[in-house]
Amino acid sequence: MGKARGPRRRPGTGPSIRPRIAALPASRIREVADVGMAMDGVIALWFGETDLPTPEFINRAATRALAAGHTFYTDNRGIPELREALADYMGGLYGIDVGVERVTVTASGMNALMLGQQCLIEPGDNVVVVVPLWPNLVETVHIMGGETRPVALTFGEGGWSLDLDRLFDACDDRTRAVMINSPGNPTGWMMSASEQRAVLEFCRRRGLWVVADEVYDRIVYDRPHAPSFLEWAEPDDAVFVVNSFSKSWSMTGWRLGWITAPPALGPVLAKMNEYNIAAPTTFVQHAGVTAVREGEPFVAATVERYRRARDLVCRALGDMARVRLAVPRAAFYAFFAVEGMDDSLAFAKRLLAETGVGLAPGSAFGAHGEGHLRLCFASSPERLAQALDRLAPALS
Amino acid sequence: MGKARGPRRRPGTGPSIRPRIAALPASRIREVADVGMAMDGVIALWFGETDLPTPEFINRAATRALAAGHTFYTDNRGIPELREALADYMGGLYGIDVGVERVTVTASGMNALMLGQQCLIEPGDNVVVVVPLWPNLVETVHIMGGETRPVALTFGEGGWSLDLDRLFDACDDRTRAVMINSPGNPTGWMMSASEQRAVLEFCRRRGLWVVADEVYDRIVYDRPHAPSFLEWAEPDDAVFVVNSFSKSWSMTGWRLGWITAPPALGPVLAKMNEYNIAAPTTFVQHAGVTAVREGEPFVAATVERYRRARDLVCRALGDMARVRLAVPRAAFYAFFAVEGMDDSLAFAKRLLAETGVGLAPGSAFGAHGEGHLRLCFASSPERLAQALDRLAPALS
Repeated sequence: MGKARGPRRRPGTGPSIRPRIAALPASRIREVADVGMAMDGVIALWFGETDLPTPEFINRAATRALAAGHTFYTDNRGIPELREALADYMGGLYGIDVGVERVTVTASGMNALMLGQQCLIEPGDNVVVVVPLWPNLVETVHIMGGETRPVALTFGEGGWSLDLDRLFDACDDRTRAVMINSPGNPTGWMMSASEQRAVLEFCRRRGLWVVADEVYDRIVYDRPHAPSFLEWAEPDDAVFVVNSFSKSWSMTGWRLGWITAPPALGPVLAKMNEYNIAAPTTFVQHAGVTAVREGEPFVAATVERYRRARDLVCRALGDMARVRLAVPRAAFYAFFAVEGMDDSLAFAKRLLAETGVGLAPGSAFGAHGEGHLRLCFASSPERLAQALDRLAPALS
Repeated sequence: MGKARGPRRRPGTGPSIRPRIAALPASRIREVADVGMAMDGVIALWFGETDLPTPEFINRAATRALAAGHTFYTDNRGIPELREALADYMGGLYGIDVGVERVTVTASGMNALMLGQQCLIEPGDNVVVVVPLWPNLVETVHIMGGETRPVALTFGEGGWSLDLDRLFDACDDRTRAVMINSPGNPTGWMMSASEQRAVLEFCRRRGLWVVADEVYDRIVYDRPHAPSFLEWAEPDDAVFVVNSFSKSWSMTGWRLGWITAPPALGPVLAKMNEYNIAAPTTFVQHAGVTAVREGEPFVAATVERYRRARDLVCRALGDMARVRLAVPRAAFYAFFAVEGMDDSLAFAKRLLAETGVGLAPGSAFGAHGEGHLRLCFASSPERLAQALDRLAPALS
């Protein structure tokens, strides 16, 4: 054992892991929530989640699948019925033809994003991202040893907007992808069709991937769905679209999502699923078929519910003197600036302690989110009204 | 746009992904299965899966959890009831004290292994692995840009055995972990307590991790459980033990597993779950509590069923002139050498075409598996007897 050496573990330092992983930030949303979960009477609006459980017709489908013995491994890319249902669904929604060979089922939108970065990112590569942004998207890149280059939305009279030239200028020779979450968490920003086409055209020229997180595509208040990169992309374009059952069908705890990607990526994604998780839970996939095939009335009712909640929240916040916000056209968040607040994490903790209302600090969504708070309005009017009453003194 | 350049995408090459990912081998088990799934009357013994659905008492627990509205996000490390149930279970099984702070629930044993490699592996690092081995374990290392160094078990009169000196000699300055799957898939090899202690001692001295895949720890025929690294490790030792609900409780399609690791890794694994999948499916976790708390009679009956299947299969194979095998003391595979067979993939395909019996080729488990076939005997005696009747002419 002459070559014995402990290159990374020094006595007393404990088991060593990659410095990059040790340095991963914990969620600042969780930092507030962890305090609040130990308190009584808190109105928690910190997570991006509805307050209602999954609708009965989807639960029943899962129960039926269990009773039918659907407890075995499935195809790595998901059961054929679900892939076909998703191809049909997207075809109908966007009025385009989506071949089933482009569809891979995943264990959540989150996992789909991680599989994507595993396919793309070598250490030193970078991904250009539009921020403020849900932090998990950038951390998937960091886990693979890549870097992220934030390009900030601008907040103005008409809400949030993106300067495309700044996006394009942020790309260099080590850029592998432009990652866009539209409709966006936390801002509710929605990229326009013409902006999507310009990004697609740019990425085609430069040989870059578009990684599009479109999980809020149905939570939209002025049209049936948000513009999707799938509407403009050719099947073989380097476009990787992530979607999820969590928001459209209130299935956050189910962990089911899907990827739409070029056909050539199909066998690759089969392997990535195999080596990450095999496939999503089998009877959950069967329930997914029911959600997609029979879920339109539920989606419509949900969006109506969120629209009323949005209007209630934005009206009340608009009356508070320190608050500045634009009414979001999509997603289920009010992401508002608070005058004089320069540490949103400390402020969110103080709000929690003083009012019992749990919000997410803007800094959880990157440095460009500082000065803001995020309130998830996927909740009942009574609960929201009570929360806003409690918040008013601190924000007026 | 003067710096426009497409460094990795050349016209006509299609969307580019990491060369390492493009080069990942597809499963050779799937290569046989994909042919067989299009055929009628095939007896498929290729996957590592029981032929019976999950027992009713576990299904009912999932249905109850759904009805109770357990469809929301959970703690990243899993619901507290499940982490406590697992700590109790391991404590009782091994006669040791396992603190709940060491337990993290994951979306399958597979996913647990991927999270582990994400924590450990930088490009150029290596992991020493005992082979023949289920290929997924090595591919997780490759996805993270690491290398694997195989150390082969020796097949002799007494079955499979490991030369510890060869294992230790394979470690160098870039080795981050020794990865051991015991009881082993495909061989059924079971590492002894004294071997585990020697490996642990070596890894302590060298500052290496032990990554132990112990998912077959309950599928053992000569004792209540296989030796576990948890029995000898101190809580703070760099030992990362992966387990799963798939084999012990016949829950392959549920995607539920867990990690037992040093307490210091807890917050890190919370982040890794968050950025990979958030947490396993919520009502699946609730069913997991029932499996762990009430599953012992089922485990006992299952092992008895597999023992009878093993005896039937080994007796029949033992009568075939070209077959050489050792009766496995654990797991549910007969991994046998076939005299004169030098291409197990081609041979498995020919067997499938000629006999309608689906086996896994030994080469699916690395170069050291060549010359062998794997038969999963987690199946009914009638089905196994019929398969063996069909196989006999080709193997005699």
